[in-house]
Amino acid sequence: MVSPVGSVLTVMAHPDDAELWAGGTLALHAQAGAPVSIALPRTNEVRDREAAAGAEALGAALRLLDELTVDALRGLLTELRPEVVITHNAEDIHPAHQQTAQTLLTAVPRVVIATGHPRRVYTCDGYHNLRRDGRPLHLPVIVDVTSMWETKMRALAQHGSQPIAEHFAPMAQTLGRLHGGRIGVRYAEAFAPLPILGRLPASPHL
Amino acid sequence: MVSPVGSVLTVMAHPDDAELWAGGTLALHAQAGAPVSIALPRTNEVRDREAAAGAEALGAALRLLDELTVDALRGLLTELRPEVVITHNAEDIHPAHQQTAQTLLTAVPRVVIATGHPRRVYTCDGYHNLRRDGRPLHLPVIVDVTSMWETKMRALAQHGSQPIAEHFAPMAQTLGRLHGGRIGVRYAEAFAPLPILGRLPASPHL
Amino acid sequence: MVSPVGSVLTVMAHPDDAELWAGGTLALHAQAGAPVSIALPRTNEVRDREAAAGAEALGAALRLLDELTVDALRGLLTELRPEVVITHNAEDIHPAHQQTAQTLLTAVPRVVIATGHPRRVYTCDGYHNLRRDGRPLHLPVIVDVTSMWETKMRALAQHGSQPIAEHFAPMAQTLGRLHGGRIGVRYAEAFAPLPILGRLPASPHL
Amino acid sequence: MVSPVGSVLTVMAHPDDAELWAGGTLALHAQAGAPVSIALPRTNEVRDREAAAGAEALGAALRLLDELTVDALRGLLTELRPEVVITHNAEDIHPAHQQTAQTLLTAVPRVVIATGHPRRVYTCDGYHNLRRDGRPLHLPVIVDVTSMWETKMRALAQHGSQPIAEHFAPMAQTLGRLHGGRIGVRYAEAFAPLPILGRLPASPHL
Amino acid sequence: MVSPVGSVLTVMAHPDDAELWAGGTLALHAQAGAPVSIALPRTNEVRDREAAAGAEALGAALRLLDELTVDALRGLLTELRPEVVITHNAEDIHPAHQQTAQTLLTAVPRVVIATGHPRRVYTCDGYHNLRRDGRPLHLPVIVDVTSMWETKMRALAQHGSQPIAEHFAPMAQTLGRLHGGRIGVRYAEAFAPLPILGRLPASPHL
Amino acid sequence: MVSPVGSVLTVMAHPDDAELWAGGTLALHAQAGAPVSIALPRTNEVRDREAAAGAEALGAALRLLDELTVDALRGLLTELRPEVVITHNAEDIHPAHQQTAQTLLTAVPRVVIATGHPRRVYTCDGYHNLRRDGRPLHLPVIVDVTSMWETKMRALAQHGSQPIAEHFAPMAQTLGRLHGGRIGVRYAEAFAPLPILGRLPASPHL
Repeated sequence: MVSPVGSVLTVMAHPDDAELWAGGTLALHAQAGAPVSIALPRTNEVRDREAAAGAEALGAALRLLDELTVDALRGLLTELRPEVVITHNAEDIHPAHQQTAQTLLTAVPRVVIATGHPRRVYTCDGYHNLRRDGRPLHLPVIVDVTSMWETKMRALAQHGSQPIAEHFAPMAQTLGRLHGGRIGVRYAEAFAPLPILGRLPASPHL
Repeated sequence: MVSPVGSVLTVMAHPDDAELWAGGTLALHAQAGAPVSIALPRTNEVRDREAAAGAEALGAALRLLDELTVDALRGLLTELRPEVVITHNAEDIHPAHQQTAQTLLTAVPRVVIATGHPRRVYTCDGYHNLRRDGRPLHLPVIVDVTSMWETKMRALAQHGSQPIAEHFAPMAQTLGRLHGGRIGVRYAEAFAPLPILGRLPASPHL
Repeated sequence: MVSPVGSVLTVMAHPDDAELWAGGTLALHAQAGAPVSIALPRTNEVRDREAAAGAEALGAALRLLDELTVDALRGLLTELRPEVVITHNAEDIHPAHQQTAQTLLTAVPRVVIATGHPRRVYTCDGYHNLRRDGRPLHLPVIVDVTSMWETKMRALAQHGSQPIAEHFAPMAQTLGRLHGGRIGVRYAEAFAPLPILGRLPASPHL
Repeated sequence: MVSPVGSVLTVMAHPDDAELWAGGTLALHAQAGAPVSIALPRTNEVRDREAAAGAEALGAALRLLDELTVDALRGLLTELRPEVVITHNAEDIHPAHQQTAQTLLTAVPRVVIATGHPRRVYTCDGYHNLRRDGRPLHLPVIVDVTSMWETKMRALAQHGSQPIAEHFAPMAQTLGRLHGGRIGVRYAEAFAPLPILGRLPASPHL
Repeated sequence: MVSPVGSVLTVMAHPDDAELWAGGTLALHAQAGAPVSIALPRTNEVRDREAAAGAEALGAALRLLDELTVDALRGLLTELRPEVVITHNAEDIHPAHQQTAQTLLTAVPRVVIATGHPRRVYTCDGYHNLRRDGRPLHLPVIVDVTSMWETKMRALAQHGSQPIAEHFAPMAQTLGRLHGGRIGVRYAEAFAPLPILGRLPASPHL
Repeated sequence: MVSPVGSVLTVMAHPDDAELWAGGTLALHAQAGAPVSIALPRTNEVRDREAAAGAEALGAALRLLDELTVDALRGLLTELRPEVVITHNAEDIHPAHQQTAQTLLTAVPRVVIATGHPRRVYTCDGYHNLRRDGRPLHLPVIVDVTSMWETKMRALAQHGSQPIAEHFAPMAQTLGRLHGGRIGVRYAEAFAPLPILGRLPASPHL
């Protein structure tokens, strides 16, 4: 009755976004045996290599797209038929994050009608848990990732060209503890469900 | 990892509220073998009898309180140690619903510190899914109750002194279909989680 | 003092959208003698014919646009000078609905400065009354369409190539009853006013 | 089809509140021949006399209550059976305004079940259009009171013991112009509808 | 032109609340030479002594009230005439926090009319930055307290009878870093301004 | 400790927007000796001349851009390195305002990473203080511009080709008084801070 741990595809803007915002959850799904994929636009040789290392650390397959377009995403969604898709929040501060989310959301309806997948779409956290209007993001789906925290941080550390130790690791720590505190565990990641053609995720019971 | 189907206590204002707003979910928990209780203030002989018949139809125990006070609720919570508590929304249109929710929320913290229960608190839907400011209620936890719909409606029909056929059954139908449509099933009930001493429910995965 | 029943233009994305989200209201205006128009981008022969049949059932004129562009809408608005325009919600789930609303809102200001029309713009409901962030749409203008319900459903049924009986008719029923229940009638449609150059609709009294 | 101009009862905390927040609308209803009443708790001889003068200027009957209790309001509502009730916003900055609104809302449901009245309840504006959390009040029902503006200001001026010229008249001017600008007229007053037992006001058309 | 660092009075429910939610800011004001007071209801000998030690560590005066009533607060506000008052959020999860905030807000208007003080009122953060409806608190006034962080944590540690090391210190760390990250410093505390009789704090420039 | 009065760049859609929404604040910064610039797309000879006269009246430099593109704004931001940027609200009613805000927000992140500027970004008010969904704009940063009001109105009056006396000056008066009333002064302008790469403005104290 409870949805089993399903396959996941993340569609994000930058090579370290999947690790930063959803790394623990991806590792959790991967460990449970579900196929996990990270789709990204190609950046450059260095960052693409870091992305591959980060994905490997999480147990995920990396899918580099020449360009992150509606058509490219439709192709990937049709091929992978993921249970779950994770993308940025439409209210995210970063214009590239917004643009990525918008492209994904434009791609989804036709694929859902054709294939029935994805079944659930979630948006992830953003810089310092803020919306672009300066208000906090409301992310009601909170996943305990304590057991995967080291994996997440190791995956994040693969992005050596980025200011991980100075900026992103401390921010991830703070957000992990914030969401963790809200469900009474050490570390958590938080998400918001999006309706697909009017469909939201169901809860099997209370 | 997924929370098992836990015991439930509903604390509501009127004898037909549990059936109306959460009857399907209560029946679902009861059918799964979890103890389900309905706490109510005594009304009068007729309505108390209807409440007993409604509770029985759902597979729930009825707990009539002489008065719905903070102390009475603390006693009941300490005795029952429910996993889940359901009450009205603090933004509910009906003043008696608001008052009941406020009393329950005042009772909860001390009991949680002493007993660790309840672990999750949810608020339920209200008249025509409206808040008292005229905006729709946002209820992100949506439970498929299709299999329990007849049970719910039969329980609701026990309240023969109330305008069930004229008002409450059609409203329940509409709300059941509204929430059902949002998760792609025939009938659903919807709830919003409340933080208990800062703790919200966790999701085991996406 | 009360605004008379004015002419209406709907600008929506798909051939069945006008019927689905505003069919009762359009029929109400048409029956009161106001010119009602439905603007749509051409789709294909089958769906264009269904659109014509749907419009006829509502008493509306169909205006098929080769493409739904800002210029095409400016031309149509300038020609028709409608009192009221109805379009999708900017927070609608469907990307094509959002895009249509954005195009209309871009077209409107220059036409209003030149012609004084439209005087009022409203957005309509969406799939299962949901915003794209999963929250319910707040639609405070609720129109009793009980007398036009059969007309609306007959118009909707003209779209034979679409899953009307399986999906759209039941959803329309549920939303019609939801909004109807909120104003104490059998069926209603609900809308939200948008400011045009800072102007919102006025109420003649309380 | 459009609701006719109905009788109105205002229930507010202080002797000048009815004039300040709804004076133009009350005068409009009174001028259209509808009975208009202003209910207030007795304050002292001076202010009660000012309240009488203010009410007279608006064409309203003054109803002084020894105390503004649920029972007193139930008695008054049952006697007057007003079409419309206006009270403060539940989010109003002033604690006495909140308390008054809460008392009225507690009184209403039983009277509505017994008498069918009031049919519509509205909340009014507050100090500088602010909610108690510092956000602006959202008041979607905007009534053109340009023709009654002098009447309103004359009624407000009856409250000679209060800082009308220094504080309240300028604030009323600013709010009147703010809401007026939003509907393209010189002066307006704005309100928000509240659901009564789940019922909101209906719009006859768009 | 910029408001100088003013005197502060905190009005909170429990002996450790001032340290937990505003300790760094209080220490900052105290260090700048402004009188800082912490008002609390008496609890018991142990906790009152901890409160005194915590206040001393922050450089604040402790004011124990026999009961936290509207009259007691009016007396204290009239005596101290603070520039700034800090209290709990009206949307706080804890019923005692809500009640304290409500009592303070009821006390304020009459004192402001009589004395012109306080000039600014702020609400503070709550458990895991959550509102009682499970959404995050929006606290737009963010104060850099990095230089006072050790002082705050030392003051918090005075409350030896409470689970500081297990619960409150880690939560304070996480919230301090969350708000700090949002303004680019190590630790911050965050607040929301409340209108006093319709007056909000002014910014001298951008 | 308090941020000094910093340099400002406004990026808006039309030649009179800077005066209308931020003229008093710009004059305040200019008078304090901070460089103030107004960036605009070229319109035509008449309006460009009016823009120059308006800017001069405020003590600001005018920067006419051939086209308001991401690249043009990046160039300007890199050259000027302003402390503060002001643009339209993303929820503004006018499509051109939204588009301008979106272009600026797309330009900002890369420049901030490269130069550390701007340090703060604010959005301004809009027509009748309304969002495009008809709700009021929440603008928590309120600046007293009473001393600059005549300067602002004189600058606004330079736009002789526009309906200033009929429309914009009265609207500016009303909004100036609305925001002024909220901080207890005669005239104010109001803004909302936006996070830049997750950074919001800090308050030095309460």
